[in-house]
Amino acid sequence: MSKVASDSRQHPASIRNLVSIDDFGNDEIIGLFEAAKAFSVDLRAHAHLCPGSISASLFYEASTRTRLSFESAMLRLGGGVLTAAEMKSMSAQKGESLADTVRVVSGYADMIVLRHPSEGAARLAARYATVPVVNAGDGSHEHPTQTLCDLYTLWIERGRLEGLDVVLAGDLRYSRTIHSFIFALARFRANIVCVPHPGLELPDYVLRRLHEEYGTEPIRADARQLGDLAGESDAMYLTPNKPHQLSLFTELSALEVGRVDALYMTRPQTERHHGESAERYMRVGAETMALEPLRDALVMHPLPRRDEIDASVDGDPRGVYFKQAARGVPIRMAIGAYLLGAIDLPGARPVPTASSVFHDQPAGPSPCPNTTCITHTEARHVQPAFRLRGRHPLRAACAYCAQELASPWVGSRTERQFDARSSDWAESLDVEDLVFLGDEREAHERGFTRR
Amino acid sequence: MSKVASDSRQHPASIRNLVSIDDFGNDEIIGLFEAAKAFSVDLRAHAHLCPGSISASLFYEASTRTRLSFESAMLRLGGGVLTAAEMKSMSAQKGESLADTVRVVSGYADMIVLRHPSEGAARLAARYATVPVVNAGDGSHEHPTQTLCDLYTLWIERGRLEGLDVVLAGDLRYSRTIHSFIFALARFRANIVCVPHPGLELPDYVLRRLHEEYGTEPIRADARQLGDLAGESDAMYLTPNKPHQLSLFTELSALEVGRVDALYMTRPQTERHHGESAERYMRVGAETMALEPLRDALVMHPLPRRDEIDASVDGDPRGVYFKQAARGVPIRMAIGAYLLGAIDLPGARPVPTASSVFHDQPAGPSPCPNTTCITHTEARHVQPAFRLRGRHPLRAACAYCAQELASPWVGSRTERQFDARSSDWAESLDVEDLVFLGDEREAHERGFTRR
Amino acid sequence: MSKVASDSRQHPASIRNLVSIDDFGNDEIIGLFEAAKAFSVDLRAHAHLCPGSISASLFYEASTRTRLSFESAMLRLGGGVLTAAEMKSMSAQKGESLADTVRVVSGYADMIVLRHPSEGAARLAARYATVPVVNAGDGSHEHPTQTLCDLYTLWIERGRLEGLDVVLAGDLRYSRTIHSFIFALARFRANIVCVPHPGLELPDYVLRRLHEEYGTEPIRADARQLGDLAGESDAMYLTPNKPHQLSLFTELSALEVGRVDALYMTRPQTERHHGESAERYMRVGAETMALEPLRDALVMHPLPRRDEIDASVDGDPRGVYFKQAARGVPIRMAIGAYLLGAIDLPGARPVPTASSVFHDQPAGPSPCPNTTCITHTEARHVQPAFRLRGRHPLRAACAYCAQELASPWVGSRTERQFDARSSDWAESLDVEDLVFLGDEREAHERGFTRR
Repeated sequence: MSKVASDSRQHPASIRNLVSIDDFGNDEIIGLFEAAKAFSVDLRAHAHLCPGSISASLFYEASTRTRLSFESAMLRLGGGVLTAAEMKSMSAQKGESLADTVRVVSGYADMIVLRHPSEGAARLAARYATVPVVNAGDGSHEHPTQTLCDLYTLWIERGRLEGLDVVLAGDLRYSRTIHSFIFALARFRANIVCVPHPGLELPDYVLRRLHEEYGTEPIRADARQLGDLAGESDAMYLTPNKPHQLSLFTELSALEVGRVDALYMTRPQTERHHGESAERYMRVGAETMALEPLRDALVMHPLPRRDEIDASVDGDPRGVYFKQAARGVPIRMAIGAYLLGAIDLPGARPVPTASSVFHDQPAGPSPCPNTTCITHTEARHVQPAFRLRGRHPLRAACAYCAQELASPWVGSRTERQFDARSSDWAESLDVEDLVFLGDEREAHERGFTRR
Repeated sequence: MSKVASDSRQHPASIRNLVSIDDFGNDEIIGLFEAAKAFSVDLRAHAHLCPGSISASLFYEASTRTRLSFESAMLRLGGGVLTAAEMKSMSAQKGESLADTVRVVSGYADMIVLRHPSEGAARLAARYATVPVVNAGDGSHEHPTQTLCDLYTLWIERGRLEGLDVVLAGDLRYSRTIHSFIFALARFRANIVCVPHPGLELPDYVLRRLHEEYGTEPIRADARQLGDLAGESDAMYLTPNKPHQLSLFTELSALEVGRVDALYMTRPQTERHHGESAERYMRVGAETMALEPLRDALVMHPLPRRDEIDASVDGDPRGVYFKQAARGVPIRMAIGAYLLGAIDLPGARPVPTASSVFHDQPAGPSPCPNTTCITHTEARHVQPAFRLRGRHPLRAACAYCAQELASPWVGSRTERQFDARSSDWAESLDVEDLVFLGDEREAHERGFTRR
Repeated sequence: MSKVASDSRQHPASIRNLVSIDDFGNDEIIGLFEAAKAFSVDLRAHAHLCPGSISASLFYEASTRTRLSFESAMLRLGGGVLTAAEMKSMSAQKGESLADTVRVVSGYADMIVLRHPSEGAARLAARYATVPVVNAGDGSHEHPTQTLCDLYTLWIERGRLEGLDVVLAGDLRYSRTIHSFIFALARFRANIVCVPHPGLELPDYVLRRLHEEYGTEPIRADARQLGDLAGESDAMYLTPNKPHQLSLFTELSALEVGRVDALYMTRPQTERHHGESAERYMRVGAETMALEPLRDALVMHPLPRRDEIDASVDGDPRGVYFKQAARGVPIRMAIGAYLLGAIDLPGARPVPTASSVFHDQPAGPSPCPNTTCITHTEARHVQPAFRLRGRHPLRAACAYCAQELASPWVGSRTERQFDARSSDWAESLDVEDLVFLGDEREAHERGFTRR
């Protein structure tokens, strides 16, 4: 019943996808940046790379900006584009599963760019498609090309990533962009300073993963330290919406950040707020830009913005957010050309990443605990699957949406026994033999006995 | 007042369209299959065929799958694509007739691919457009490229069409796809076995046309014969939704079908059902695939499917439905290249098919009896027209939607007399002189007297 | 505070846009016509002109016809197309300003084609975009490519524009197309005969501008003169909807128009009517076409039509409206190729037109008096701006939507004084020093004192 499914579907294991930024190794990412940089010299000089190739944009929710950026990249590579911006209504109408849709579209295109409201949708698509799949955003899970675009902007402006001092400001709680970016910064060993809007701090699971996987913690600053720091000479602050209500960062010298490399500002994700007020939301304006620690800082933003960056910053050479958006094209050109086999990345070994290995759970009452995971809507074709995150302690996550499995119980398929996940017995089980159980009752119902 | 209109519009009679599969002769169809097969060796090697050509997708109802398949084909041929997926709202808003729209779009594109909810829309479009028109589905009338894709799949997998044993199962009543397919199978002399879901049998007019035009009747099997046949060694059955409720085909040996070449499964068209229950709808699963007569059978489906084919069949090499969908691209490449004059079909004589000859009715109260025929919504520009289907008995159909004219009365324009359609006098009338009358009252109102 | 902003944004002043037909000089327009004519010999022979170039269609309201025409032109030039037909819902959802959107899309495309419901949107887009912007219709302001297409049809059919006798008929009040066309006709010194549907006469501001800028008045005819003119031998009339209700033009001999070069018919813009009845709207039919003065007249229409041109005219060689629509492609090819720098227009000097010069008003309570001007919805980024139309009298218009500023008061920024706009003092002020004031109260509030 159990299997390692990474190569059990129609397509050869050699097909690479970009579902999560973790699908690419560090060497590959830097290789993509080098390729994007070369493309940028003249975006129109690379139409010989993918002539005759077709990219299909399957968008189950509207995101015109992202779609146009991908399509522009494909056209610049000399390829063609199929556009389905209305997939949601289609799908609802005829009731076709995503697994079927991507198998069909694999016959029409050489690459699929997928946007979907459910977490894990892109991983599922990659598993069934017979062409490369690029994740253009799956719910609140990942949006890796946005993250690569952000990283690339830092890299090209600063020439490196390691050791950069990056300030993240605003809604750090609900911004998917920020979460992906912060893990990427940690992975490339940048220093992270968080300046959340009050009530919109980084979620605990992000902090925990930062600690567990990268052994690092962001430097945390608090706008509420205003009282302590007001009037300090080298304090860095953001201009609030209303005058006379300065929300200071913190004393940067105390943080040993003498000069900020980049200030990454986010818009308040008010559509996801649950009562948190984004009134008097932080605002970057002329006063902010006059601060000494921001003398050379890039001001970045994933766009669209509302009021959080004042129009006066648009003409400031440090305000690179429009350049950042434009860099989405060369970076997506590099991704497309790489996945389509049109370019090599010298020095980069394609790593068979852990994220592509699935351990299917047999059909049963253990769905992914994340109710907006794609496995819930695609239950007809897909059974729950996990992948291992760690051995000591034994950690696993949904293979699709990456949410961690919380249950304390695991079983052995061959022994038909179960025990606490933290037990030595559990940690020693072969991955093929492992089964994650929802609770004791489920364990008994599925025929496992307690060790 | 009357005229033969086949060449009376702006475009030369030499423009070929694909409105109905009857627009192409058998030689041409096999020629298209040969071309599609050659394309399939490497779909990306044919961009030299139609560089600079433009295909416009005019979709008055959403059908993303069909649209993408056509657009992929055009891109593979090196051409460009104009997409209008939202024609319905456009048209409703500004009140433009279809006849005007296709004349305008003829100035923008070299070929028009039309999807429309009204029967006959594609024929009307072909009459007014000055570029080739391909019917991508017009109501419940025709969807010829789907039919060609289905036939092509049989042909390429079996090497021929004549004499193949094809089982059609499921909703045979409301599936436009099945109706078109069944006529095409009859035309190419395949054997047809029907296994309808109870209540969803083939409509009478399909059976009648099969008999009248092809002198053939499908081998009819009945799932309700279960009682008689259960337990027979070589019975072929479909796995029902619920276990223990097998719905057998029939005894295949009795039908002299020792081995099935293809099992074509359809989804229940529940959106068109009028009380017929599709509960416990037939389902093809592992049990079905284990049957001896299906040992080498292809399992086909027009997609999208819901539950009528189990996911377990996806990995079975006989389950060719995803291949079938993918073959829509080379077959549509062949169609596009042929209509655009980019390829010849050696050995095929383009037949000036009867279906392109119109006999306009003068303005009057004899609209097409099909109330969803395009002639009702386009009455401003278009008058009813018919084409002759047979002489003995005298039969005619709406020249647009192909629905047969049922009235028993016909008249002579020159003699201003009318009589029963079955009379010798009626059968001897010149087609230019013929007029089909709704009823006796209409005949009198239009100034005809009874012979 | 004040500045001349024509070159103060990111892009070099050398970028040309087509926001208004006034952005092009007469030489350039004729040059474009020559290019379009050359393209028309074989539309498919010019794909070498813009290979690798990308045009983005940003449509904030649906206009499939216009969009497809632009996209066809770009494909014919060998370029690629990005399509965003759903910008309105996007924009509303995420609240991004147009100024930001066009800056982002400037990174994805080499040219932006914009359709927007607000007047002045295209001028604003041109100011912020870093690539050429083409106006594909901004509210009731301008739709210059339609006007160029209309002019081009006259030019190619008649070989010239000067001195042509052009009859404009129907809804002259609410048709944006007619207003743009009439100014263009005046500019090229054609004679204009107006035959409005009763109640749908030309607006006063159009007549006034015709007089002030071109020193000309259209020859005005009145359908209500029917009583006087009925029975005259060479009267020209339109066939009304109902028989026996002829609406005559006028006695053409009295107008010294012996032969009409073109009859431009419009549909009633009922969606903009405020109680005006378009019942018994004028209709061009067979009777109209039989009139002696129309012996050689072109019948033109911007399409879509409803009933105002009878289907019987479609087959008449003088009914050129479908040709007119088709000519939208070569004219848009010429525009695209010119703006992208792919062709030169021999003999045409690119004129740095007045329309591209902005005089920003400092932030204050003087918004554009047109409440549907884009400056009202984009107030976050954009301050009101004007450009000078004339010195004696001192006239100015909103730099975005072109609506004339009506206030009688102007001030001097340096002197902080204000006076009547008609005063000698006002007329002598330097344009950099000028400020247009809403009313006396505003003048005082902004610190100006009466001279």
